[in-house]
Amino acid sequence: MEKSNDYNTDMGMSSTEFLIAKRDGREHTPEELRAFFAEYMAGALSDYHVAAWLMAAFIRGLSTGEKVALTEAIIESGMRLELGHIGARKVDKHSTGGVGDKTSIVLTPLIAAMGLCVPMMSGRGLGHTGGTLDKLEAIPGMRVQLPVEEYVRILERHGGVFMAQTEAMAPLDRKLYALRDVTGTVESIALITASIVGKKACEDLDGLVLDVKCGNGAFMKTEEEARALAMSLVETAKMCGIETRALITDMNEPLGKAVGNAVEVEEALAVLRGERVDERLGEVTLRLAEEMCRAAAQEERDGGWREKLEGCLQSGRAYETFEKIIEAQGVSAETIKRLPGSLPRAKERVAVLARAGGVLHGVDTYRLGRLLVEMGAGRARVADAIDPAVGIYLYKGCGDAVRAGEMVAELHVQTVVDAVPFERCFEIREEGYRARPLIIEEIG
Amino acid sequence: MEKSNDYNTDMGMSSTEFLIAKRDGREHTPEELRAFFAEYMAGALSDYHVAAWLMAAFIRGLSTGEKVALTEAIIESGMRLELGHIGARKVDKHSTGGVGDKTSIVLTPLIAAMGLCVPMMSGRGLGHTGGTLDKLEAIPGMRVQLPVEEYVRILERHGGVFMAQTEAMAPLDRKLYALRDVTGTVESIALITASIVGKKACEDLDGLVLDVKCGNGAFMKTEEEARALAMSLVETAKMCGIETRALITDMNEPLGKAVGNAVEVEEALAVLRGERVDERLGEVTLRLAEEMCRAAAQEERDGGWREKLEGCLQSGRAYETFEKIIEAQGVSAETIKRLPGSLPRAKERVAVLARAGGVLHGVDTYRLGRLLVEMGAGRARVADAIDPAVGIYLYKGCGDAVRAGEMVAELHVQTVVDAVPFERCFEIREEGYRARPLIIEEIG
Repeated sequence: MEKSNDYNTDMGMSSTEFLIAKRDGREHTPEELRAFFAEYMAGALSDYHVAAWLMAAFIRGLSTGEKVALTEAIIESGMRLELGHIGARKVDKHSTGGVGDKTSIVLTPLIAAMGLCVPMMSGRGLGHTGGTLDKLEAIPGMRVQLPVEEYVRILERHGGVFMAQTEAMAPLDRKLYALRDVTGTVESIALITASIVGKKACEDLDGLVLDVKCGNGAFMKTEEEARALAMSLVETAKMCGIETRALITDMNEPLGKAVGNAVEVEEALAVLRGERVDERLGEVTLRLAEEMCRAAAQEERDGGWREKLEGCLQSGRAYETFEKIIEAQGVSAETIKRLPGSLPRAKERVAVLARAGGVLHGVDTYRLGRLLVEMGAGRARVADAIDPAVGIYLYKGCGDAVRAGEMVAELHVQTVVDAVPFERCFEIREEGYRARPLIIEEIG
Repeated sequence: MEKSNDYNTDMGMSSTEFLIAKRDGREHTPEELRAFFAEYMAGALSDYHVAAWLMAAFIRGLSTGEKVALTEAIIESGMRLELGHIGARKVDKHSTGGVGDKTSIVLTPLIAAMGLCVPMMSGRGLGHTGGTLDKLEAIPGMRVQLPVEEYVRILERHGGVFMAQTEAMAPLDRKLYALRDVTGTVESIALITASIVGKKACEDLDGLVLDVKCGNGAFMKTEEEARALAMSLVETAKMCGIETRALITDMNEPLGKAVGNAVEVEEALAVLRGERVDERLGEVTLRLAEEMCRAAAQEERDGGWREKLEGCLQSGRAYETFEKIIEAQGVSAETIKRLPGSLPRAKERVAVLARAGGVLHGVDTYRLGRLLVEMGAGRARVADAIDPAVGIYLYKGCGDAVRAGEMVAELHVQTVVDAVPFERCFEIREEGYRARPLIIEEIG
């Protein structure tokens, strides 16, 4: 780290001058910002340069122009899907992460069955949240990690595919996230925005819908934070040429009755078959589906989407599309025929009982998620293995009346465990319950 | 950089939590701060962790307690001199860096001749400033890099020694400085304070005097910045148990008539012999000397130091002590006898002429320093070699009347160079000159 007077012609300044600019709260030009990260990707700058910039950017913030430029730097760092030859509009959905959220599993075949193209790129679970890829892998034979050409082939044929982010896509985002994780710079709306939009923009999308979770099981605990993130995401994605809408949805209790991997797939299958398994899950899924149709159609008027979407579910077209997609992704016809019976089952059931009588006021969703991770349903660390059969089934939701000692939930586990820590996640009070809105706000 | 949940028992928190605390402007406890840097020195934390912290600390600032703890972390990172067996009070001086500042060469033997102990630890030149070690090495045979035991032996015998910071001392400071240099976090008063006091405290000092330079040739351009740094240094050093005083001195023109290496040694020798070669150099040197005596004596009353110091110079005792010290540091008796004639001389002299008539209003001290570095008198990079004979001799100082075409300075160079860039450093105007104070403020 010898004193460097190197002057970078692309940046128009040295890397040190670039860091000083953000340190002092000045705005970078798009050229400077993209050149800095191009240098980093080329190995000419070190992690410590970028760590210092991330901290300065966290504290000083980024302008809209800087967020767009960082997003572009992320896109430029790797390959992009090329879907121009597919006539249908491309649309995807992204959730900021919650507990029990299996909407992606429903939305991909549902929106594909509507005639749109859904390159659904998902992630894996980490911390207290689950990941769509882990959930899907609970289906025996399901392959989510495929060569890009194969994803494209499945998209061409079936209109939808469940993708993992490939190494070749947005590598800058992975490097930045790894650094943010160890330098205390994760919770920045500006950096989160560029990360999400950068990854999604690699999918060559026409439309994007964001599900910004808000509540005790979400990264954004308050409506104010969630609104700020949603507005930042919509603004930045629109400036990157993607028609984008966001819903802020409640995450003060899990979404749906099942939390885990196999159990969540089973619940998603029921929704895909048009069953009314859970009011909240059904409503969030359909509202997101409507927004995806509107974003893809790029029209404000009501396209009668709700009715068409319900039709797709009731007619079995959505479910058939799901079967085709997962068959193309490696699941055998026999396994598909036997679903959900072909999903792994845990050996034991452990009842989670109400510790008092009254009304279920709240679920400590974060803690519930963490407890499930400890049991093997998720990962505390990236390298951890998952037991797809482990999970929980909730029999009571917020606002439901409960008798003392009544079963509020049931654990699916491989060996009998103490249910008390789970019981403590359910807050039961005699009175004063006030229902919260499920869809808190629409943005975009 | 995989997600880490490592909890450090010494820090009482994870490294990420530590970074988040400073990011959000919270104060670290001394234990947390010392443990973080102990981990870094042990190799358990990476440069990117510390780069992120440096940026957060730069922007959020450090409390007095945090500055003291960082200073202690720097001291604890390596070895300390042990001078307890030397009866005399130990005192050192530190300058924040300027152009033409050769006071250390005079002060070490002068204060030693007063019966005090002066472990003068200096650095090398970098950027536009010179370094005492480089200047001393202009004397043939002079060795500034010695084993610690030898420094201590010379101190015991002669009361003064010219030391280089050894690898074993304050290694954390070197690592931090290297990181600050490349992450745009150099100019932080808090970080500068811990760096300076941490290094000096390794010398086992009773007293310390700081010469905080202020002006166009200094790191601190304004009196306000210089005062803030001086107060921070004095407060922190006192809390580390060192009696400390600071002078803020003018650096809007070089200190003394000579700038370079051999030429500066020659001027310092003249001061040591009691010659009045330059009013400003003589005054700053004697004021710093007085402050060193007062700091070492730990008394506020006027100890009649000025008179005693003048006596030391006039009697030849200071010069004799200088001869003994440099002889102990490798300079032959023959070389010493022939000083200053034994110093290297440049082959050519190039006149620097006044571009107009009037009064010399100002010297662009920074630019002059940079131009001399380009000619070989200093280093743009750590690895650069120095030509000890290269330098400049100034015949005019600020406030002096000048005729157009009169020689204002003379370059000492190995091959004839264009003097015009140097001539442009001298700002000559017809009227309106206002003298600046030389000693701007005393602090402590």
